Amino acid sequence: MRKVYFDHAATTPTRSEVVDAMIPYFTEQFGNPSSLHQYGQWTRAAIEEARDRIANLLGVKSSEIIFTSGGTESDNMAIKGVCLANLDKPGHIITSSIEHHAVLYAVQYAKKLGFETTFLDVDQEGFVNPDDLRKAIKKDTMLVSIMTGNNETGTIEPIKELAEVAHEFDVPFHTDAVQAVGKIPLNINELGVDFLASSAHKLYGPKGMGICYIKEDARDKIESISHGGSHEFNMRPGTENIAGIIGYARALELAVREMKTETMVLNELTEMLFEGMNNHLDGVHLNGPKDNRLPGFLNLSFDDVSGESMLMSLDMQGIAVSSGSACASGENEPSHVLLSMGLDPIRAHSSLRFSLGRSNSEDDIDYILRVFPPMVEKLRMVSKL
Amino acid sequence: MRKVYFDHAATTPTRSEVVDAMIPYFTEQFGNPSSLHQYGQWTRAAIEEARDRIANLLGVKSSEIIFTSGGTESDNMAIKGVCLANLDKPGHIITSSIEHHAVLYAVQYAKKLGFETTFLDVDQEGFVNPDDLRKAIKKDTMLVSIMTGNNETGTIEPIKELAEVAHEFDVPFHTDAVQAVGKIPLNINELGVDFLASSAHKLYGPKGMGICYIKEDARDKIESISHGGSHEFNMRPGTENIAGIIGYARALELAVREMKTETMVLNELTEMLFEGMNNHLDGVHLNGPKDNRLPGFLNLSFDDVSGESMLMSLDMQGIAVSSGSACASGENEPSHVLLSMGLDPIRAHSSLRFSLGRSNSEDDIDYILRVFPPMVEKLRMVSKL
Repeated sequence: MRKVYFDHAATTPTRSEVVDAMIPYFTEQFGNPSSLHQYGQWTRAAIEEARDRIANLLGVKSSEIIFTSGGTESDNMAIKGVCLANLDKPGHIITSSIEHHAVLYAVQYAKKLGFETTFLDVDQEGFVNPDDLRKAIKKDTMLVSIMTGNNETGTIEPIKELAEVAHEFDVPFHTDAVQAVGKIPLNINELGVDFLASSAHKLYGPKGMGICYIKEDARDKIESISHGGSHEFNMRPGTENIAGIIGYARALELAVREMKTETMVLNELTEMLFEGMNNHLDGVHLNGPKDNRLPGFLNLSFDDVSGESMLMSLDMQGIAVSSGSACASGENEPSHVLLSMGLDPIRAHSSLRFSLGRSNSEDDIDYILRVFPPMVEKLRMVSKL
Repeated sequence: MRKVYFDHAATTPTRSEVVDAMIPYFTEQFGNPSSLHQYGQWTRAAIEEARDRIANLLGVKSSEIIFTSGGTESDNMAIKGVCLANLDKPGHIITSSIEHHAVLYAVQYAKKLGFETTFLDVDQEGFVNPDDLRKAIKKDTMLVSIMTGNNETGTIEPIKELAEVAHEFDVPFHTDAVQAVGKIPLNINELGVDFLASSAHKLYGPKGMGICYIKEDARDKIESISHGGSHEFNMRPGTENIAGIIGYARALELAVREMKTETMVLNELTEMLFEGMNNHLDGVHLNGPKDNRLPGFLNLSFDDVSGESMLMSLDMQGIAVSSGSACASGENEPSHVLLSMGLDPIRAHSSLRFSLGRSNSEDDIDYILRVFPPMVEKLRMVSKL
């Protein structure tokens, strides 16, 4: 059976160029970077060279890049880092209602620790309004955390404006950029954030690898969430995942180099898919904005049919899509993101996320447009009975 | 130049069989295990199968194995997990004075959080005395954490007896078994601990991968140190490092299968090395016990010469050894482990750790016994001037 993967927002395969770059660091260049002998010095040099390349690609200083085990750890590092640094005088934390669970649940935990929390509403396309942020900031606000690109709709938030608002009040700003890094031009320095989370496996790098950007003068605002050796500028203990670090650097490098072409291709394919759906089916609704959307993202609701049943039927045709984010897919709840955008629960329940990527071609679009519309009609008939 | 790696306690190369097992999970079987479609279900099955194999090899239930990013995170998960679960009523935590920094600094952080801490002394061979533990336990002791095998001397602690003492008083017991798993027979259930930390890269698996064993009825004793998705039985959020998990399982499997032979070979080589040193040099002292030592470990002090200078000179001959643990090697302090064992600072400063492993042969021993003794004599002469 034909296999079509339309779930690149859940995870991506590691590119072969990335695996090739990683391999020597498993078997040959394996020394502990903390070791004083040559084996250690070789890998220390390789890590620092990778850090320099990443910092350069993201427009920041090398000493501001901390290697972590992934996006969730990076989000926790900033949010819980602020909490743990202020356990004796918990203040106020602001986030949005459409964040990834790594942010949402970290902020909910902050509440348990005595912090006051505000979850900003979004408009019907999923945008946070900088004026809403301004109104929400209090005297004791200690952190604002708003994601760069939403993982369900692809909505790209106005991070630069939002960070500027926070900084007017001297409040540090964190952004979960897990879906955005490597997909849209992103110079962290110009963006003006204090903390930023990224994950390698969303950009064709290995799983279990991420970075947390920590602006130099924001380091003292957080307490480390992990204690041990003095690795990573004392911010993240543990023997470095060398192969993972090399893999992240290579994946980011390739993503940035190919971003322009890749974006053009993905925009075209996504447009084809959207038009095709509308041509073949009634009752198709776009969730999220028409513009300012991450390349490859298309979140659609289909009247009178559940996301789950479409997902399962597509899976039987070898097509992988998602309803809600992968991390929440165990729970059979309508997406908190779509509900926050004001969609009624039924429309939220009838949504599918298509996330296109490097593996996709026009043939894939043709294939899904051939099998999907009759499938939906059938499911609609069944649901009417 | 000949290359000889005598630093397997710092880290090991990933075995080629392990890399081969991992590769397909980067490029082909790459789905997010939380995804409902086939790509996700394939990797979900692979992870659970690996978890079953690991649990079986360690004598515990599958649901008691939590995948983490390494030993440091696993240690933090247990120790800080207990702290975070008891922030409102901090009690007492007991550890030893010879722990790895991941444990030492996690416990020191507990102190900052208001916990009372006791660091048990060890005898001159590095052993913790169960009677000392019994005397140290208080009404509000919430955790005991003692390592299974020491990372500098290889001393194997009497964990079973120590855990029994803790359990007499209903106190949960954690052990950092990072150096021991895969090197000595270890059935966690028989050992009787509640929490155990292990790291893949110490047993010829990949870096950035570890496990935390959490006994089923001890889960509610800890608060998660990271918040996000409901992965890993709600104990550790974040997309699973599938390749790393497969790599850990394969590495452990090979280690357990070959343990008997490997131990015999390492014991013989280590004995050859020790005897050879004594035959060729005066003023050689064993740090740590003669028996009950992890295979391959040999920590020696050499009169009138510093560990650092020997390390550097050996490095120039292509031989990698360590003075102190790799994680602390940046700091030029005498080893806290050797000082705790009652060694005077000068002898502690003149120590080297040789840690032998799979890559070593009799030829390596011959080589070092040829180049090292004249080197020490020379360094001794220089230090006398």
